[in-house]
Amino acid sequence: MTLEPSPSPLSCDISLYDRTESRVRTYCRTMPRQFGRAEGVWMYDDEGGRYLDFLSGCSSLNYGHNHPVLKQALLDYIEAGGITHSLDLHTEAKSAFLEAFTDIILKPRKLDYRIMFTGPTGTNAVEAALKLARKITGRQHIVAFTNGFHGMTLGSLACTGNAGKRGGAGVPLGHVSHEPFDGYCGPDVDTADLLDQRLSDPSSGLDEPAAILVETVQGEGGLNAASAEWLRKIASIAKRHGALLIVDDIQAGCGRTGEFFSFEDAGIVPDIVTLAKSLSGMGLPFAMTLFRPELDQWAPGEHNGTFRGNNHAFVTATAALRHFWSDGIFAADVVRRGRLLERRLEAMAREHGLSTRGRGMMRGLDAGSGEAAAAITAAAFDRGIIIETSGSHDEIVKVLAPLTIEDDVFAHGLDMLEECVRTTMTPAFGVAAE
Amino acid sequence: MTLEPSPSPLSCDISLYDRTESRVRTYCRTMPRQFGRAEGVWMYDDEGGRYLDFLSGCSSLNYGHNHPVLKQALLDYIEAGGITHSLDLHTEAKSAFLEAFTDIILKPRKLDYRIMFTGPTGTNAVEAALKLARKITGRQHIVAFTNGFHGMTLGSLACTGNAGKRGGAGVPLGHVSHEPFDGYCGPDVDTADLLDQRLSDPSSGLDEPAAILVETVQGEGGLNAASAEWLRKIASIAKRHGALLIVDDIQAGCGRTGEFFSFEDAGIVPDIVTLAKSLSGMGLPFAMTLFRPELDQWAPGEHNGTFRGNNHAFVTATAALRHFWSDGIFAADVVRRGRLLERRLEAMAREHGLSTRGRGMMRGLDAGSGEAAAAITAAAFDRGIIIETSGSHDEIVKVLAPLTIEDDVFAHGLDMLEECVRTTMTPAFGVAAE
Amino acid sequence: MTLEPSPSPLSCDISLYDRTESRVRTYCRTMPRQFGRAEGVWMYDDEGGRYLDFLSGCSSLNYGHNHPVLKQALLDYIEAGGITHSLDLHTEAKSAFLEAFTDIILKPRKLDYRIMFTGPTGTNAVEAALKLARKITGRQHIVAFTNGFHGMTLGSLACTGNAGKRGGAGVPLGHVSHEPFDGYCGPDVDTADLLDQRLSDPSSGLDEPAAILVETVQGEGGLNAASAEWLRKIASIAKRHGALLIVDDIQAGCGRTGEFFSFEDAGIVPDIVTLAKSLSGMGLPFAMTLFRPELDQWAPGEHNGTFRGNNHAFVTATAALRHFWSDGIFAADVVRRGRLLERRLEAMAREHGLSTRGRGMMRGLDAGSGEAAAAITAAAFDRGIIIETSGSHDEIVKVLAPLTIEDDVFAHGLDMLEECVRTTMTPAFGVAAE
Amino acid sequence: MTLEPSPSPLSCDISLYDRTESRVRTYCRTMPRQFGRAEGVWMYDDEGGRYLDFLSGCSSLNYGHNHPVLKQALLDYIEAGGITHSLDLHTEAKSAFLEAFTDIILKPRKLDYRIMFTGPTGTNAVEAALKLARKITGRQHIVAFTNGFHGMTLGSLACTGNAGKRGGAGVPLGHVSHEPFDGYCGPDVDTADLLDQRLSDPSSGLDEPAAILVETVQGEGGLNAASAEWLRKIASIAKRHGALLIVDDIQAGCGRTGEFFSFEDAGIVPDIVTLAKSLSGMGLPFAMTLFRPELDQWAPGEHNGTFRGNNHAFVTATAALRHFWSDGIFAADVVRRGRLLERRLEAMAREHGLSTRGRGMMRGLDAGSGEAAAAITAAAFDRGIIIETSGSHDEIVKVLAPLTIEDDVFAHGLDMLEECVRTTMTPAFGVAAE
Repeated sequence: MTLEPSPSPLSCDISLYDRTESRVRTYCRTMPRQFGRAEGVWMYDDEGGRYLDFLSGCSSLNYGHNHPVLKQALLDYIEAGGITHSLDLHTEAKSAFLEAFTDIILKPRKLDYRIMFTGPTGTNAVEAALKLARKITGRQHIVAFTNGFHGMTLGSLACTGNAGKRGGAGVPLGHVSHEPFDGYCGPDVDTADLLDQRLSDPSSGLDEPAAILVETVQGEGGLNAASAEWLRKIASIAKRHGALLIVDDIQAGCGRTGEFFSFEDAGIVPDIVTLAKSLSGMGLPFAMTLFRPELDQWAPGEHNGTFRGNNHAFVTATAALRHFWSDGIFAADVVRRGRLLERRLEAMAREHGLSTRGRGMMRGLDAGSGEAAAAITAAAFDRGIIIETSGSHDEIVKVLAPLTIEDDVFAHGLDMLEECVRTTMTPAFGVAAE
Repeated sequence: MTLEPSPSPLSCDISLYDRTESRVRTYCRTMPRQFGRAEGVWMYDDEGGRYLDFLSGCSSLNYGHNHPVLKQALLDYIEAGGITHSLDLHTEAKSAFLEAFTDIILKPRKLDYRIMFTGPTGTNAVEAALKLARKITGRQHIVAFTNGFHGMTLGSLACTGNAGKRGGAGVPLGHVSHEPFDGYCGPDVDTADLLDQRLSDPSSGLDEPAAILVETVQGEGGLNAASAEWLRKIASIAKRHGALLIVDDIQAGCGRTGEFFSFEDAGIVPDIVTLAKSLSGMGLPFAMTLFRPELDQWAPGEHNGTFRGNNHAFVTATAALRHFWSDGIFAADVVRRGRLLERRLEAMAREHGLSTRGRGMMRGLDAGSGEAAAAITAAAFDRGIIIETSGSHDEIVKVLAPLTIEDDVFAHGLDMLEECVRTTMTPAFGVAAE
Repeated sequence: MTLEPSPSPLSCDISLYDRTESRVRTYCRTMPRQFGRAEGVWMYDDEGGRYLDFLSGCSSLNYGHNHPVLKQALLDYIEAGGITHSLDLHTEAKSAFLEAFTDIILKPRKLDYRIMFTGPTGTNAVEAALKLARKITGRQHIVAFTNGFHGMTLGSLACTGNAGKRGGAGVPLGHVSHEPFDGYCGPDVDTADLLDQRLSDPSSGLDEPAAILVETVQGEGGLNAASAEWLRKIASIAKRHGALLIVDDIQAGCGRTGEFFSFEDAGIVPDIVTLAKSLSGMGLPFAMTLFRPELDQWAPGEHNGTFRGNNHAFVTATAALRHFWSDGIFAADVVRRGRLLERRLEAMAREHGLSTRGRGMMRGLDAGSGEAAAAITAAAFDRGIIIETSGSHDEIVKVLAPLTIEDDVFAHGLDMLEECVRTTMTPAFGVAAE
Repeated sequence: MTLEPSPSPLSCDISLYDRTESRVRTYCRTMPRQFGRAEGVWMYDDEGGRYLDFLSGCSSLNYGHNHPVLKQALLDYIEAGGITHSLDLHTEAKSAFLEAFTDIILKPRKLDYRIMFTGPTGTNAVEAALKLARKITGRQHIVAFTNGFHGMTLGSLACTGNAGKRGGAGVPLGHVSHEPFDGYCGPDVDTADLLDQRLSDPSSGLDEPAAILVETVQGEGGLNAASAEWLRKIASIAKRHGALLIVDDIQAGCGRTGEFFSFEDAGIVPDIVTLAKSLSGMGLPFAMTLFRPELDQWAPGEHNGTFRGNNHAFVTATAALRHFWSDGIFAADVVRRGRLLERRLEAMAREHGLSTRGRGMMRGLDAGSGEAAAAITAAAFDRGIIIETSGSHDEIVKVLAPLTIEDDVFAHGLDMLEECVRTTMTPAFGVAAE
């Protein structure tokens, strides 16, 4: 198969969407096609166009679209009449998932977590984590970080930094403060020390937190990657001040950084972990919250949700765990591809006096402005690459390719991206001239 | 096929769940089996037991388990490599759903709603509705009702009446007050008038609301059904006081009351409607928020969610709309079955001096106490019926059978339930003696 | 001395105020004079006008202006160099007050209250009461009542019903709900029972309250007087549901209803009581919060305020207690004058088909509309009577004369008021025609 | 008169207080005497003891106790029957104050402020300032600072940093964040720049503030004095980000720093200023909020309070303005005395390797620990000096002498303090050895 995307030349007719669907939608605005089929790293529109996916459903498709192993497992399950919706009843599909997750993920990492199936959205997993932390500690305040993103329901939205998203709440968002993330105050200020100072000062106005909620790499916030040392300090600060450490691993987890959990490299063990996005492996709604067994102090039903027993997701998630994580080959591949990505982005950055961000297969190029980044991603889409931006000012061109992308496809896609950057950032052509 | 359930005599081994899954789970405690296959009204455990489903995933399975038409549509879609996860990009599956929902549901009912795909949980649809109402009106307060249930994330949880659920928040739940639902203050007090009085009194302490949020039949709150007249009054009060009317139709909608929307009988047109549970038709996670086009003042991405483009759910939902709602036959069946249910429950109530609640196929028997109701449902489970309770004190035995249940199966199941009630409520046997 | 007021014919020059003072001021708008001297029931403007005070500083001057006994005590104290400001240090003036309050007020009523000197404003006393109730119970919610008024700082403002005042907060006011006061839902609904129902229903959405905060007579809310029976029910409900009962006696206390505390008649003993307004006896800023000794669980300084040791107020308050409350003569006088007031207002109400409100010397005439009430008070001011309105729509003409008013002066003032009502409410003249 | 204090050797009998007054009291615990008379810098107990006041009612007695000019003005007013309590009616006493404040304070400083008489406590003035800022901007968030102190009612308490005070609220304190004050992050970090960065970053999680609320010198927070440059930066940041600048000058204002307003040196003009404490000049309850005329957008009565017309305070405040501020002599004296204080404290600091804090006559010695500071103030009290601590850990020995203190008395008092420091901090004697 050729490595080349072949986008359709024309926009689809989107009048149906304009007539019937809310204007809240976003991605379809910059990528106005109608998609039908998808497989691996490729998406197909209904006019025969083919697109290379460098977005992966915002890291929900780490194994690509409709991976054949997962797809077959799901087909088999449905055909056999397997139960689909089961609230929180015991099911064979759940049992298989619990065993796989325990045996393949937790035990080898010496992690002892109790598994909670929340409503199947990341924000729901975060809401559950916040509730549990507040219940356990009897405290109400949460320390989150600048540029953090944790979801859109009121509890997790209060932990999210983005002003536009926050403004949508329509009510003030309380019980949370946003402290400077690693590097936020420049290279000379250790923001972990700042946090420690404030928590140690009984007159700082920072209430004792129930939890410190952190992403190891801030996906929506601009692919800011915390250093392992900073993460260890934060873990130690949480412990010293009686707060639980919650790692929101919804975007960075499930292998995106080269480990299953993004905090493994740092050698920390969070009290609570949230997972979603790529957890089902096939893009099905699925989320869960993990916590140390001693923290499992929920009353039955104290947090629940109609779709917390999504058996289709149990099935594909189990297949994904068994297929990709039973040994270390896949993880090693991801690390290798992450280095490739790093080298390529560094080269682009050097060429144009820019900088890069991120870790593993979760990296981006700081284009200097939202305008420049938008120009780059628009150029890429014109050539058939699905790619998006993130960051405070949408200034980061974000590469979130499927982790399974083959090396030659990846290289070719990055070649194309490099050209788009060059075309855009060169004075004669692009925004940099302004 | 026999009408008789045949439960397995023994509990399954649940040690795996105890070891690995959080104790937050509920249903599996009173129904300790491990389920595998499910079809129509029947669920099967892994020891060969067969169970009649009078719970329907809390009204998420209105068309029963794995309905063959929906199942086949999903299998076809997956086999063809249809895109699974698409954020809010345009897809063929979405397009088909938008057309079906518009043509089959909205147009015939002369409803002009813009469709918003929220995160695929009911609570997410409610959060979106609340945000929008607050944005549109510039107000912050929400009027909800006693015994209302709207979800578990902080925004919707604030609108939920249940003290145990509320307590789980760990922070105070604000910006909402709970006014008496229809009938709450006894037959002599019109609680709509009370609400109007308070909203008309500038010194009542009740802030001007952004919205009045109401269920027409309170599912979790005890199957309290508001009268059509009361609903019309509430709609008129909302309008008069500049508040939007939100009908949370997550449990009562999608045909449960015999109409697609539970508010059709009352002749009201809410400003905003939330749907989830049975929307996908097959129990897949899917939710949406509908609103009048003038209210579609979202900024792009102001509310979003990773799984808002769940194409599997688009596919099954489209199939369900086309199969069940293209003409009036299904709805008429539901109405008829609802009357059957009413007659049978009334007879049970009369026999034991009890009362009934509800509307359509969403009805229950007030057993007088949570203890009595639990005894009845336990007895029913022993005979192979999956059935649950609801209400302030879990005192309502709730019958939420699939709407597709065949008359003889339904009648036999109700015969069995009647015997369980009799056994339990008769002094010689049961809790009533105490 | 003549009984007749003699108002100045012309407004004073208020340009100084317009130039320099904020437009937030209110009373001076409808009573545009500049006052200089005041004595007993009389106020004098700087153009020689004389006014009969039927407002008494909103019940802050129950003993009239500058009562000679209090005035002399204060002059003696200042001349002797008595300490003025002392934070919460021990002082002779405080010691004298503590002894007088204990011996004259608490002991004879068999009340065992610990005395807390809060910041010298009513709202501060309420804030302290709320803090203490929340601390003691570990709960956050407060049940207040429709039309209640408790102050203007954020904690007490949240308990205040008035929408205009609440709107001034600029932030949502939480942790409080306003339940219907006695009589709010008409004569057929017992609102205490309603409250009990909601507190007994774990799904009503009404959180367990730290306290029930009530005025026995709602001064700002329209002189609504709760019945003794209702108050006893509320006291019992508070106890049964683990909430503290706070009586805000800031306006109704210090003798206004004929007893020192307005709740004495009802035979209840609140857990916490707030006092301010007439506490100093001479209109000096002074407030305190009383509570049962077991509730005195404050940490030192947990609530404080710069002016909590206002020795001038200690001196005049002590003199007032000794002069007016050492025996029952004054209280009997107030009761007698209250009956006179009741008879006179009832006669006015009967004549015009209106109704009256209130208790003791805290009574008003419901003029039917704010417009009518404003016309009456304006006519009264033209004749030299200082009088104001209250109520949801400012529809109550409020008579708050000094409790010390002599019978003939009071009768003459009420004659004048009667004429103003007659002139205003008679179709040929007034607003009633509209 | 001798310069020497002569404290009574024994504690007074405080059993009356223990029996009747709440345990919330603080100062009387470390200074267990009962005071009667006070004059200038001297306080007298009821056993003949004499004490030098280095606390000045926490800066409420900047002109000393019962200054003869103020005292006489008040006596004259009371004797003449001047009205005491007048709500917000126009009075001669108010008129005189408005003229004096405008002519003596505002005009010479080219300040054009509208004057609002709030309830007579500092916290009430702050609550009014916050309400106004929120109303004007339509925003809800307030930026306050670490170690700030602004009062004890819920609105101002939310702006206060002290954890013990905050904990007393019993509810979470929202709508405020505490950013690092000048110097909080050490000498190398410009905390104004940090604030600017966060406000400029739409993803920082810091909501757009209605106001930045700042003390120029943090009295309770440990006498941290902001630099003029930092204050100018903060003023500019507020303006640039659409926030109002509120200077809380309750403790540092009224001459304490050598200017009438503490922000004069910095050359900034706040949008809103709060004053209280020494405003009446004699320790009487009095507070006000000043703001630019364009900000005077209050609705009548939108914020009010029973004691907002405290005429005794108008009288003494007017006398104080005329006596002390009609020319520059007093201010120059304060500056001179402030330098004396600085030199003396610096010497003590040098001797013991400690540091000093503060500005003008608002300075302290950082004793290194709360224990050391308590030992110093206890030793000082034993010798007849009334002195207190402040700071996050009560580690600052705070010298707040009356501004009117004569040089020889001041010098002698500082000699005594120096000895107390020496005795306490010398290893052989004191806490430093531990």
